[in-house]
Amino acid sequence: MSEHNSVGIVSPQTAHFDAPLALACGKTLNEFDLVYETYGELNAEKTNAILICHALSGHHHAAGYHSESETKPGWWDTCIGPGKPIDTNVYFVVSLNNLGGCHGSTGPTSINPETGKLWGPDFPQVRVADWVNSQAALADRLGIDIWAAVIGGSLGGMQAMQWSVQYPERLKYCLIIASAMDLSAQNIAFNEIARQAIQSDPNFCAGHYREQDTNPSQGLALARMVGHVTYLSDDAMANKFGRDIRSGSIEHNIDQEVEFQVESYLRYQGSQFSTAFDANTYILMTRALDYFDIAADFNGDPVKAFATTKAQFLVVSFSTDWRFSPRRSREITNALIAANRPVSYAEIEAAEGHDAFLMPIPRYLDVLKAYLGRIAEDLL
Amino acid sequence: MSEHNSVGIVSPQTAHFDAPLALACGKTLNEFDLVYETYGELNAEKTNAILICHALSGHHHAAGYHSESETKPGWWDTCIGPGKPIDTNVYFVVSLNNLGGCHGSTGPTSINPETGKLWGPDFPQVRVADWVNSQAALADRLGIDIWAAVIGGSLGGMQAMQWSVQYPERLKYCLIIASAMDLSAQNIAFNEIARQAIQSDPNFCAGHYREQDTNPSQGLALARMVGHVTYLSDDAMANKFGRDIRSGSIEHNIDQEVEFQVESYLRYQGSQFSTAFDANTYILMTRALDYFDIAADFNGDPVKAFATTKAQFLVVSFSTDWRFSPRRSREITNALIAANRPVSYAEIEAAEGHDAFLMPIPRYLDVLKAYLGRIAEDLL
Repeated sequence: MSEHNSVGIVSPQTAHFDAPLALACGKTLNEFDLVYETYGELNAEKTNAILICHALSGHHHAAGYHSESETKPGWWDTCIGPGKPIDTNVYFVVSLNNLGGCHGSTGPTSINPETGKLWGPDFPQVRVADWVNSQAALADRLGIDIWAAVIGGSLGGMQAMQWSVQYPERLKYCLIIASAMDLSAQNIAFNEIARQAIQSDPNFCAGHYREQDTNPSQGLALARMVGHVTYLSDDAMANKFGRDIRSGSIEHNIDQEVEFQVESYLRYQGSQFSTAFDANTYILMTRALDYFDIAADFNGDPVKAFATTKAQFLVVSFSTDWRFSPRRSREITNALIAANRPVSYAEIEAAEGHDAFLMPIPRYLDVLKAYLGRIAEDLL
Repeated sequence: MSEHNSVGIVSPQTAHFDAPLALACGKTLNEFDLVYETYGELNAEKTNAILICHALSGHHHAAGYHSESETKPGWWDTCIGPGKPIDTNVYFVVSLNNLGGCHGSTGPTSINPETGKLWGPDFPQVRVADWVNSQAALADRLGIDIWAAVIGGSLGGMQAMQWSVQYPERLKYCLIIASAMDLSAQNIAFNEIARQAIQSDPNFCAGHYREQDTNPSQGLALARMVGHVTYLSDDAMANKFGRDIRSGSIEHNIDQEVEFQVESYLRYQGSQFSTAFDANTYILMTRALDYFDIAADFNGDPVKAFATTKAQFLVVSFSTDWRFSPRRSREITNALIAANRPVSYAEIEAAEGHDAFLMPIPRYLDVLKAYLGRIAEDLL
């Protein structure tokens, strides 16, 4: 681990909930666990709490290290820590693994208490609204009536947005980063390709791969490869790999073994992911993305949805992000303006595509730091 | 069939070549077949011949119908026919299936005469330069010393470009549509995902699926789905599908069966393709795309490559094409200008993405018609 500006060693905690959770799909979870981490201290007035919502393949471990020997910190360590934009000297930060996840919260890899067997593919299709309800239950448990801010990027931004509509009294600020009010057909298509890759892997076994002691690794790796390419910009890939060849040259290669650097990189990324992530969870998370539509309960009008909110908003996008393009963030901003809600919008020049929301891009960090400084001035 | 402006019923022909063809990879094809179609009449001076080069999944059947009962004409029937931009009242049009293809020309689905067995995955990795050599052999066979024009879109555009460098004396005009001087890392990455999808299908059998009487249909379908999504623009998909759901609504769906129109469309496209195309050919074609680099033999300098050419050029791109973006076509145009070659460039506003090059977009057809009219004035 590296000590510099780090929250240091952190330990995940588990909250068990016995009260049934009614889900948007019509089913009910009678009990569930949420695994979460906290960074910083909750103040006496409980006014400094920030909720971090994770994206497709994220989890609760957003900052710090789980042990002295860990070399990689949590997934948003660039933003969360003492003196960092989400300053743990100021804020009490809560980060959880969502329901349906595969990092400790109840999901397809958990045992269904009613059957004594793995949930597997039978875990209910949770949606963004369900996550927000479960996060509200966690807030209750932690004694947090009102979040100073709910923050998320990508699918996490959808959760932040949903919070503002679903619990308008329970958050003061809402930070929506690299997100959209709903997925485009193109995004749904890429998600469907990922699901098809997993489901057509013979080791998927209709989702019961764990009982068969196997894993749809090839399908999951393919799904990750598709995701990975689409989260990067064309420029970012060009800068990172160009047309570099692993060895030799195209022109002097007699057999078919020419291999570009980008190919071996992708295969490595896919293979790593396929051993670390659960296939049923991946399917569930992409479905939650597909189904999200902030305006669905408002006759398709996002202005009506946002008119019910009470938070102040920051919307952030990245210039080369083509899966959640600046245009989609401007749609959010424009709907908020039309709904007469206070909103700031920052479009960050960045070569990194959708992945930029996880990167330490100076202007991005500056925007977050300034905005969170303003929240502290307002609330603390 | 529809008679309107059609070349009518056409019959493919096969040309057999006995002279060995030395390939860029170092191997030699001792004999091969090319299947081709022709439309219009070769004039006495043999000055009105046009070569059409096909793209990744294309073939020789570019225009007209194979029978009265055929409902869909050849793949570029919008452009080729009497009175159409490539006017068969004026030009003699030649369209072939490339070496390595799966529509009649020698390729992985052919018998290797030296072994008496299917070529399968052992068919040599042909490259764009090899195709051009084989097309030159076909030109010799047809008595065509000089093409009035060589025309192609996408991978076909690479062949047209290569013709101008490899046989500068054998073409007067070169039309390069929605193409690039080499593939970007992102494009190589999408091709690699397609190959991985095919190769990780257990029915691929290391390429020997035909001997095993099976087919990697799932992998090939996935590969096609990836291609299909990336050939369309985000806008085109939004216009075509939006977030339409096949039946019912997301909000009132109790189980996990919500399905967007775009999903069933993609699955249908993938499944259709997987029964009509050969997996080894798909891998070979994507490799040919990846390996193409017009500047490779010129120290990486495309200006030096184009300085050796003698043709006049038309370069065309489409505004929403993100796999072969207008930027890539401007690079071709700028290199031609720097090489002091005569070039016209048209950037067509079109919502259809890369697929636009196959579509009847009025300004696109107008540009082609005007340019081919100019060629006729010049040569005929």
